[in-house]
Amino acid sequence: MAAGHGPRERMVFSAAQLLRLGGVAAVGMRETAAQAQAPRGSLQHYFPGGKEQVVNEAVGWAGRYAASRVSRFLTALEDPSPSALFAAMAQQWTDEMAVAGTLAGCPVAAATADCAQSTESTRTAAAEAFACWRASVAEALTGMDVPPARAQALATLMVSTLEGAILIARAERSPRALATVVKELGPVLDAAVEPGTAVPTGR
Amino acid sequence: MAAGHGPRERMVFSAAQLLRLGGVAAVGMRETAAQAQAPRGSLQHYFPGGKEQVVNEAVGWAGRYAASRVSRFLTALEDPSPSALFAAMAQQWTDEMAVAGTLAGCPVAAATADCAQSTESTRTAAAEAFACWRASVAEALTGMDVPPARAQALATLMVSTLEGAILIARAERSPRALATVVKELGPVLDAAVEPGTAVPTGR
Repeated sequence: MAAGHGPRERMVFSAAQLLRLGGVAAVGMRETAAQAQAPRGSLQHYFPGGKEQVVNEAVGWAGRYAASRVSRFLTALEDPSPSALFAAMAQQWTDEMAVAGTLAGCPVAAATADCAQSTESTRTAAAEAFACWRASVAEALTGMDVPPARAQALATLMVSTLEGAILIARAERSPRALATVVKELGPVLDAAVEPGTAVPTGR
Repeated sequence: MAAGHGPRERMVFSAAQLLRLGGVAAVGMRETAAQAQAPRGSLQHYFPGGKEQVVNEAVGWAGRYAASRVSRFLTALEDPSPSALFAAMAQQWTDEMAVAGTLAGCPVAAATADCAQSTESTRTAAAEAFACWRASVAEALTGMDVPPARAQALATLMVSTLEGAILIARAERSPRALATVVKELGPVLDAAVEPGTAVPTGR
């Protein structure tokens, strides 16, 4: 997280990192404040809804972060294509695993696994985070000449497949599953391109 | 779970159901014994490794259950094809959601999200469960004329995609993502069939 963010933003970011490591049970109020280098009392100040609010905001942050990464990947691609975008999305996780040796998970996946049944506000936050991420992917696809209806469906496929491959990669402590799904899905995604159907994205 | 199972099997099954609902934090020793209608003391008797052992055995059970379902889906298909198998795998979740109104998740996904970083034995159990499930899918694909190397890769793709779609379906409380990935992945899976390459499966 960039320097210069205030304690509130830092605590939301810390909660997201704790979620990634050990799910909702790992998001302790004390640990969240400590990792954010924020005074513990400030959690109650900024998050009167307690842990549930912190978790939900961390999930929302993760959805916006994933969406913004899609835009940045797209900008960085020399030769943009749906397969290259999906490869870049997966590569972020492979790179993190190569650097860290292990792989922390997706905070939205963890919050869903732990709270979709028990905490309606967290379930809703997760649905919104998935929607935010998916919309960003769909917009990128339409900008690459994938017809809009198909782009929505393929965005769901890409996010689903990446989420599952992250789970398997974490369990196996290996990027194998990430490499496999990139290789298998790439041609399918590129086959959806129909030149001339691009929707201006304003980028 | 079929009647006639002993208290040990019932407790493993109960732990898997609690994992599905609320992750590892939801697997209380007391609740596990109560749901299995087993005396609480029997948990210590059957699972001297405590909650970690119960969770790991629940994950192992889930992997074997998923693998056995693949064989049963295949047997039940009138016109077997890779797309029909994937549709049947997803339909099990869609049906459960239609009956229950909500969707409990995959116990292997929950254990991975919560414990892949903190508990090495649970991470290993999850990796083995994914491998068991994937091997069953790959065997089914080779039996349908998908070349063996491709079958391994497509099995990883199918399990990854289904796991992610389950997460999204739970968050959205809608089977939409499951239907979407079945529709998008079906033609890809069927295109991998190369008649004449079937490996006898002994079924």
